[in-house]
Amino acid sequence: MAPNDDTARTERPRARLFVEGDLADGVTVELARDRAHYLAHVLRLGSGASVALFNGRDGEWVGRIDALARNRARIAAVRQLRRQAAEPGPWLVFAPIKRAPLDYLVQKATELGAAALVPAVTRRTVVGRVNGGRLRAIAVEAAEQCERLTVPRIEEPAPLTRILEGWSAARRVLLCAETGEAEPIAEVLRDGAPDDGWAIVTGPEGGFEQTELDALRKLPFVTAVGLGPLILRADTAALAALACWQSILGDWRRRPPERP
Amino acid sequence: MAPNDDTARTERPRARLFVEGDLADGVTVELARDRAHYLAHVLRLGSGASVALFNGRDGEWVGRIDALARNRARIAAVRQLRRQAAEPGPWLVFAPIKRAPLDYLVQKATELGAAALVPAVTRRTVVGRVNGGRLRAIAVEAAEQCERLTVPRIEEPAPLTRILEGWSAARRVLLCAETGEAEPIAEVLRDGAPDDGWAIVTGPEGGFEQTELDALRKLPFVTAVGLGPLILRADTAALAALACWQSILGDWRRRPPERP
Repeated sequence: MAPNDDTARTERPRARLFVEGDLADGVTVELARDRAHYLAHVLRLGSGASVALFNGRDGEWVGRIDALARNRARIAAVRQLRRQAAEPGPWLVFAPIKRAPLDYLVQKATELGAAALVPAVTRRTVVGRVNGGRLRAIAVEAAEQCERLTVPRIEEPAPLTRILEGWSAARRVLLCAETGEAEPIAEVLRDGAPDDGWAIVTGPEGGFEQTELDALRKLPFVTAVGLGPLILRADTAALAALACWQSILGDWRRRPPERP
Repeated sequence: MAPNDDTARTERPRARLFVEGDLADGVTVELARDRAHYLAHVLRLGSGASVALFNGRDGEWVGRIDALARNRARIAAVRQLRRQAAEPGPWLVFAPIKRAPLDYLVQKATELGAAALVPAVTRRTVVGRVNGGRLRAIAVEAAEQCERLTVPRIEEPAPLTRILEGWSAARRVLLCAETGEAEPIAEVLRDGAPDDGWAIVTGPEGGFEQTELDALRKLPFVTAVGLGPLILRADTAALAALACWQSILGDWRRRPPERP
């Protein structure tokens, strides 16, 4: 859903672009072919038009298109719209799944404020390869659309056991499980502190093996949480857990900002 | 995620099918071509194999395949596995969106326990037609997979204003909004009662118009709720609100069942 009235639409730049370079007064940003094409031929913008820029570090800026050609665009940062602010969402540690649900998962997890996306290979994981570049592109596009100031970090796939061997015990893990020993997720979140680091861990389509689940549950930073009586798909479980975290511990606890 | 150990897999039938007819001891169910094909050629089941059957009214049954041919299958209900139980999820009243995110929305809303899916035309709704048959097929498949005992009711599209004109004031509406006047969703749910009827209302990709939002908010059964500072896509907002409802007011408040 986009802003709720037409004023907001005309006041805010119509395009919002993630860039790699630093943003500051007067800095010039060069865009490559696909972004230039998007501005010129999809949005039909021209020289002098405004876009919003962010890089995950320097807040959000109004940029003015100074030059726009078929293969490239040059944009000058002219004014800061928003300062960089903390976006303290949980990490999402997930067993890779098939391409279409994985693409959706990355898009939705970005909107739902995951700070990092960590592909974790479990015993029943059947998807061996993850195209990090594609996932990064999906996360960038989702961050641009949803007005995030950051793009979630996307890590290289690694075995879940190895990821948890090097785990900082201060970061709490919500292990999405489906057995009777799991505690209701809202109960666990209500007893938690927002400022702890958090991670949500979800299994592959085949679920965790029982021995794997037993071993994970013994780790002192892991709490097994349940998401009701139904068998959720892997991507559904991840998104549901992120939404619950945001509503009970995250920045959904505050009213949304005024959108003039 | 599927059941967590191999025991559960061998004890439960591998296929779970929604059927229209009544289910009772000795009743015989006939399946048409596509379902017969699925059993024979995708799952490679034969005569004598077990499947699970449900119809939304008579609980879940073990069925025995008595005959399986290219174009049809005959299955006898032999034993009740689970009694019919209440599945009191909220209604999801949503502005129709493009095909791919709509399909995804119906699949996920079914897993997240929506009792009814109500397409509602708002001022900025640009998708005019909804293929009810396709949505029903997606909901049936999702219900089969996630072990629901019901399939959500899918209504014909109607203008949102008309839907709310005939609204029972006892059913509370959570209107997913993006302005500063919306209350945090967890706060509203915590003050609510599970046994009230509930509905979640989400807008189209372009959001609600301000005048529309103002009019909706004046209705006595409507509470505008916020889902954080970001601009969520329409499907993301719907799924997030359903997950929050289930975790705070729904059956995610109980531990998941033992899966032996």
